[in-house]
Amino acid sequence: MPDQRTVFFVSDRTGITAEALGNSLLSQFDGFSFRRVTLPFVDSAEAVDRVLAQIAEAGKSGRRPIVISSIVDESLSSRIRSCDALVLDFFHTFLLPLEQELGVKSAHAAGRSHGLRDPREYFSRIEAINFTLAHDDGQSVKELSRAQVILIGVSRCGKTPTSLYLGLQCGIRCANFPLTPDDFERDQLPDSVKPHRDRLFGLTIDPERLSAIRQERRPDSRYASLSQCRMEVEAAEQLMRRERIPFLNTSTRSIEEMATTVLRDLKLERHIF
Amino acid sequence: MPDQRTVFFVSDRTGITAEALGNSLLSQFDGFSFRRVTLPFVDSAEAVDRVLAQIAEAGKSGRRPIVISSIVDESLSSRIRSCDALVLDFFHTFLLPLEQELGVKSAHAAGRSHGLRDPREYFSRIEAINFTLAHDDGQSVKELSRAQVILIGVSRCGKTPTSLYLGLQCGIRCANFPLTPDDFERDQLPDSVKPHRDRLFGLTIDPERLSAIRQERRPDSRYASLSQCRMEVEAAEQLMRRERIPFLNTSTRSIEEMATTVLRDLKLERHIF
Repeated sequence: MPDQRTVFFVSDRTGITAEALGNSLLSQFDGFSFRRVTLPFVDSAEAVDRVLAQIAEAGKSGRRPIVISSIVDESLSSRIRSCDALVLDFFHTFLLPLEQELGVKSAHAAGRSHGLRDPREYFSRIEAINFTLAHDDGQSVKELSRAQVILIGVSRCGKTPTSLYLGLQCGIRCANFPLTPDDFERDQLPDSVKPHRDRLFGLTIDPERLSAIRQERRPDSRYASLSQCRMEVEAAEQLMRRERIPFLNTSTRSIEEMATTVLRDLKLERHIF
Repeated sequence: MPDQRTVFFVSDRTGITAEALGNSLLSQFDGFSFRRVTLPFVDSAEAVDRVLAQIAEAGKSGRRPIVISSIVDESLSSRIRSCDALVLDFFHTFLLPLEQELGVKSAHAAGRSHGLRDPREYFSRIEAINFTLAHDDGQSVKELSRAQVILIGVSRCGKTPTSLYLGLQCGIRCANFPLTPDDFERDQLPDSVKPHRDRLFGLTIDPERLSAIRQERRPDSRYASLSQCRMEVEAAEQLMRRERIPFLNTSTRSIEEMATTVLRDLKLERHIF
């Protein structure tokens, strides 16, 4: 029977960083089953009281709970650290060495991350999202010159999720444009993207996987057939190779890995939100 | 003159967690200007060599660099820790106490986070993204019963970014539906969302801010006028209050805060990617 532990992600704001950090730590332990509880917006003594009660309740099973905390306020976080659990407190752990290194005290103010700090930053993020949505799947070629990235590839190879990630999470204006059988017949890049070669990045995919994905959309169509998928993928890769467009196979990569590689290769700075 | 420091985010995978963690730590220090350098995919001895050279180069300015590292492999990360910089190594720091608590050694394997672990997880994420896109701005009412959240609110109040965040980053099938002057005239919720009251969540916004946002879209239109915005916001809030739909003002909240609050209030579990 696996050892069941309750893991609390506790934060004075959204808890997103605590949860990402915690999940990546927990993924290093096989054979355990973790019950995850996210407790965001813990920013008052009363909220801490409620959290401590929940932790104590979970501890009654006999298994000590695990707490991943990202509360900035020291008087609140020290109460969390005093409970009967393994508490990994990332502000407490890392702020002290940073304070020593920089020779100053930190602000110890909550809400600096994932809050609304700079309205201009917010507007430029919203603009990146709107741009990305308006330029999904070649919908608009207007203002393509304002795109920071233009993803190209055959239909259903993963352009949309990667574009949305770049827009929403990295603040990048990303267009995406399909490569279609028409383009392969002409054996040329689509005319609308030709003037923007330096910002083109290709995505490709294993034909088997593409066929399975298209099958969900249009079952038993020619579009979804393995032979059609093979033909399109081969033609797209040939075209991108000849035109020296860098490309990436999406079959074995997560959305985050694709976005990170695109930005690195095009030397674009991301702003992680 | 502000103290300029170079901060390296070093990771064997995407570096997204390291960067989020690092940014939230750095945001606690005012008056410093940090030059940020992201170095993802540092997963070999050669890659570590290149990183160490970059860190040494940055150190020549006289200011010791800061390194936020999330490299899992101990032989690689120990070399990073030995360099002349303040190194905050989050796996090294937190894995040991977790190993002691759980009584086992961790897998120390890279790529468990933001990699492609479980194909089913990937497909359900893609499905959430596709659902959310297809149900943006009331575009489709098909399968609205499959939505886990339906956001409602006046045009341009922030429904789309919040929906996309829920789909892309939390794997939640989120539809959104505009409340329009027609609805206010009828003084009723739109018919298509009525059967799904338990999953409705409202967004509202300050009229001044709404007017500024609409002004960007359609300058000097009636749609963007402050009087029209005031009327719509007031009518929408009145309707939501009467129908007991929980709602949130987006004017002072980040996308992450809105998404986190919606999930908490509707008691939905998120899966942070």
